[in-house]
Amino acid sequence: MAKPLGFEKPLGMRDILPDSLAKQRHLERSLRQCIERWGYEEISTPSLEYYDTVGAASATLTDRMFRLLDKQGHTVVLRPDMTAPIARVVSSLYKDVPLPLRLFYQANVFRAQEKEAGRNAEFFQTGIELIGDASVDADAEAIALAVFCLRAAGVETFRIAIGHVDFVDGLLEEWFEDESIRNQFRQYLVERDFVGFRQLLSTLDIDPAAKERLEALLRLRGGKGKIDEARSLTENGKARRAVETIASLWEALEAYGVTDDLLLDFNLIINLNYYTGVVFEGYAADLGSPLLGGGRYDHLLAQFGRPAHATGFAIKMDRLLMVTPVMDGPPATRILLCYTEDQRTEALAEAQLLREDGLVVVTRLVKNQAEAATFQGEAYSKVICLTKQEE
Amino acid sequence: MAKPLGFEKPLGMRDILPDSLAKQRHLERSLRQCIERWGYEEISTPSLEYYDTVGAASATLTDRMFRLLDKQGHTVVLRPDMTAPIARVVSSLYKDVPLPLRLFYQANVFRAQEKEAGRNAEFFQTGIELIGDASVDADAEAIALAVFCLRAAGVETFRIAIGHVDFVDGLLEEWFEDESIRNQFRQYLVERDFVGFRQLLSTLDIDPAAKERLEALLRLRGGKGKIDEARSLTENGKARRAVETIASLWEALEAYGVTDDLLLDFNLIINLNYYTGVVFEGYAADLGSPLLGGGRYDHLLAQFGRPAHATGFAIKMDRLLMVTPVMDGPPATRILLCYTEDQRTEALAEAQLLREDGLVVVTRLVKNQAEAATFQGEAYSKVICLTKQEE
Repeated sequence: MAKPLGFEKPLGMRDILPDSLAKQRHLERSLRQCIERWGYEEISTPSLEYYDTVGAASATLTDRMFRLLDKQGHTVVLRPDMTAPIARVVSSLYKDVPLPLRLFYQANVFRAQEKEAGRNAEFFQTGIELIGDASVDADAEAIALAVFCLRAAGVETFRIAIGHVDFVDGLLEEWFEDESIRNQFRQYLVERDFVGFRQLLSTLDIDPAAKERLEALLRLRGGKGKIDEARSLTENGKARRAVETIASLWEALEAYGVTDDLLLDFNLIINLNYYTGVVFEGYAADLGSPLLGGGRYDHLLAQFGRPAHATGFAIKMDRLLMVTPVMDGPPATRILLCYTEDQRTEALAEAQLLREDGLVVVTRLVKNQAEAATFQGEAYSKVICLTKQEE
Repeated sequence: MAKPLGFEKPLGMRDILPDSLAKQRHLERSLRQCIERWGYEEISTPSLEYYDTVGAASATLTDRMFRLLDKQGHTVVLRPDMTAPIARVVSSLYKDVPLPLRLFYQANVFRAQEKEAGRNAEFFQTGIELIGDASVDADAEAIALAVFCLRAAGVETFRIAIGHVDFVDGLLEEWFEDESIRNQFRQYLVERDFVGFRQLLSTLDIDPAAKERLEALLRLRGGKGKIDEARSLTENGKARRAVETIASLWEALEAYGVTDDLLLDFNLIINLNYYTGVVFEGYAADLGSPLLGGGRYDHLLAQFGRPAHATGFAIKMDRLLMVTPVMDGPPATRILLCYTEDQRTEALAEAQLLREDGLVVVTRLVKNQAEAATFQGEAYSKVICLTKQEE
């Protein structure tokens, strides 16, 4: 025989075995039920998209996309997210469908990995897009739905942090004309590297008031009270408008009754260039990385020729799996029904009756009762043997 | 503004819109429930696999695979089927798990298309693999489960045709030493081109008895009675053993009580080189192409270093969608709950109560009752408006 084929998988690719997958499917069902009741409809888009359309509109760096040439010589990519493909559909197949549109997806997305670091190159997301509604009520709906999703999934302790891209931008513009300096500050915030942020601040020769206010930015994380603090921190028009948006949003979220699960975070920055307004991230206790991310992206649809306001979020299923309890309820009753050949008809009919009652039944032809007895130790609730033979 | 991005999708790629997707999900759930009760457990494998492992073991022609280079310079492919990846898992992660193993999947697979001919390059399958059981009872289980799956999906009229790769092979070997001639005959059978088969037969200078028997092969399609006809058609040992296997299989299938939905087809050939024994294909009335295909593949696992008998099948979801009735039951009650800003808290609380009762509720901020009235025509069962304002 030839040398066996290898077992290796491409970097960041993985198999999901039944126990783990059963839990993922259970979570997907819970999320789907929750999301559908809010009027969202599921959509599916292809795994492969042209680089020049969806690839170019995606927030993912080109270098992180899986790229290939199709048989016609075009560069195609494995979809890096679902937001850009949905924007494409809304602008083409759905171009005559009135807005707002509420769509959701449960899909895998791809991110090429450079080195063996345990990072997934293919991962599963459940997400929603609410397209064509500019109101803070739409932002509030997305955030409230995110809260209900995490509750439906059984996440015990979580917080969703809410910010606005214009607040940090406006505050930085107020003090720094140099874009490269602003970007350095932004990058520290993306990485949540407050030490780096403070060091940069200390090296710059600026107004002590500016230093104080930028220093205070790092503490703008908390409840409703942070809104007044944020107001007092800036005279920049853009930043001020962002604060007022957040204030109205908070009011809408109070109407949803979800503010106990929320947190204002005026220094929140999400490293996706398409966000244009309110942004949010969900965190669970004991997990450093966000469970979900989302926000308003009012410019993406225009890139496909149908300008429209939009907001949405995506839940990262891998991380959700880490912070949700093991599946509740007893495991399904799993019966092994062994039979000798002379009892085949009776055994198979019995198996089918048990299945119709909702039981899981595996059937197995055996030589005799003794053979059936050897399966007792395996993962069955019960082993039955149908035989006429004398042992 | 820059020129909008294009809407095109790579050849054979498509979006699945909510109505169609809802039906697909419904079918997937029905199949899943059926398959799980037979003791099969779901598994997921990566979209991308190394060409040298799974790609090489796959029955798909290399030229039909989507290939790309990963960042490490290896050739990777988008999985052309799920059977080879599952064989990889059974031989590696599962190498110490005792056989038989019952696994299933609901997954997308890929096939590169060369020209615009309406053929899908990405399609969805639900399939099972029963690994480690050489008995005809295992073949019978796979076929009976296929019958139960098609019933569960609501396919009204269907037949599963059953054949054996060794019957045609043995019969051809009995009369033709030249492999290229045997392959020509096989190819006509793959394409169900009986005219071509007969033409080839008429051009060959062979024993009239051979002509008669090969001609008779084309009529070996029907009920149990075809078994005796098949026996009488050949003295070749391989072909004869195939007939006896089919005879035992039919007995097992009678025990399952599913033979009314079956058909013996001794000239059935499936164009996948990994089949080694019993093969089968499911057809629905009014659909030329098979709904499902499957069979025994006893050599694939050995390629991954864990020799094991195996059988399985895959249902093509696109085709299943074409032959299943529209979803039964009334559509979900879909309520549009409009509210003016002063009624936000009341409206959102009411929406949540209705959702907890299982209704689908979309909420919408409006200026006044008159605005809400404009939504009556849309796809809602009911439009409610909560307002305190005097109109």
